Amino acid sequence: MPRYALLLEYDGAGFVGWQRQASGVSVQQVLEEAAARLVRGAPVVCQAAGRTDAGVHAGGQVAHVDLAVALAPERLRDALNFHTRPHRVAVVRAVVAPEGFHARFSATGRFYRYRILNRRARPALDARVWHVTPPLDAGAMAAAARALLGRHDFTSFRAAACQANSPLRTLDVLEVRRLGEVIEVVAEARSFLHHQVRNMVGSLKLVGEGRWPVARMAAVLAARDRAAAGPTAPADGLCLTGVRYPVDPFEGAADGE
Amino acid sequence: MPRYALLLEYDGAGFVGWQRQASGVSVQQVLEEAAARLVRGAPVVCQAAGRTDAGVHAGGQVAHVDLAVALAPERLRDALNFHTRPHRVAVVRAVVAPEGFHARFSATGRFYRYRILNRRARPALDARVWHVTPPLDAGAMAAAARALLGRHDFTSFRAAACQANSPLRTLDVLEVRRLGEVIEVVAEARSFLHHQVRNMVGSLKLVGEGRWPVARMAAVLAARDRAAAGPTAPADGLCLTGVRYPVDPFEGAADGE
Repeated sequence: MPRYALLLEYDGAGFVGWQRQASGVSVQQVLEEAAARLVRGAPVVCQAAGRTDAGVHAGGQVAHVDLAVALAPERLRDALNFHTRPHRVAVVRAVVAPEGFHARFSATGRFYRYRILNRRARPALDARVWHVTPPLDAGAMAAAARALLGRHDFTSFRAAACQANSPLRTLDVLEVRRLGEVIEVVAEARSFLHHQVRNMVGSLKLVGEGRWPVARMAAVLAARDRAAAGPTAPADGLCLTGVRYPVDPFEGAADGE
Repeated sequence: MPRYALLLEYDGAGFVGWQRQASGVSVQQVLEEAAARLVRGAPVVCQAAGRTDAGVHAGGQVAHVDLAVALAPERLRDALNFHTRPHRVAVVRAVVAPEGFHARFSATGRFYRYRILNRRARPALDARVWHVTPPLDAGAMAAAARALLGRHDFTSFRAAACQANSPLRTLDVLEVRRLGEVIEVVAEARSFLHHQVRNMVGSLKLVGEGRWPVARMAAVLAARDRAAAGPTAPADGLCLTGVRYPVDPFEGAADGE
């Protein structure tokens, strides 16, 4: 049974998140139902590298799907795009997965980007931002972010609902930069705890406003207590931008006709 | 009566265009009605640098408004943003206009950007693009664009409804570049004819597909015949990104609290 790797893009606003849930339409459900159409309705399981929450967007999510039928990957891509309409999800690329590939368990890095629109006027063009009106000091935020780099117990930034066995994670990148009115936070790790990025951003925002000194971030981390950190930043600003694998399944794959 | 200059952002999808029309909600109407709330319902006229068509977006539109009341510019900005809700328009900045300033007649340059998403999969994240699936040769498009630079009779790229006295325009910039899956066309001129940018892009796309040789663009221009050029590109991909004035009214103006 061939396994296909899919590069996905979706607008989180239309979904209850990646994972199937009784409460609404998930990206996983939409893709699995589309794939089932290709195998006469037989059930299909689609697994993703990042189980994004409700409202979280993806520009570079990776998933895999096993199909009881061999299809040219570009036909699979087009068929899935046809059957997922009109949902705001797109299969940007599809390839035959390398031997032993698993979208979630083979992944060695997840990349997230969080965007804050930092101005008085509400966003009229870009809805995928957190609108923060007090002026933020991006330099202070960047300095505070550095305190979180490396291997730590991230309990302070972990959602109560987190199902991970351990609160230990290694944060490889957490960068903050201002691009005009937008403040962009880029995060990279092998994996993240539930809400970890949004909880880190919620605390960085307090530093940016000057309500917390830069040095407080290290103390918050050391507290290993969710109550020590800032509130969870809204989902709208977060986007899963990419996933790293030891061997990139899409490397060299053409867009195809 | 003080005149204020406004820097505007709007999502063209929700409007029949800049200009007031009986057929639906225009950006002008929404702003004029919001401004009227500030002067007890007295009629207010708001004029813009670029009278964008239905569906065309703006990231850097400039307008002016005369108000029979002196307001701190940042209060005007906040009040207009309050009264224009929930329409997808935002007053990003407001300043007291320089002496003799007219948003439309003082403008000496208009900047437009047209974005094409060039891939098989439909856009899931960015709806403000023209989705073109055949692979486009951006290099050929860039070469063809150069034939249109300078002062010419642009009748071939002029909408039948165009109200300009003359079809002569000076095109200062027309650049085409590929950014991954996106092809961006940037255009700058003192002013444009009605649909000129979209008609130029519609022809460039034919060159990009290889259906027209690069050299055909000069012939199309010389024909001075709308029928010689390609179809009008859709409005969704177009954005008015900025307006130039001899003295930038927003220069040095703070975002304000």
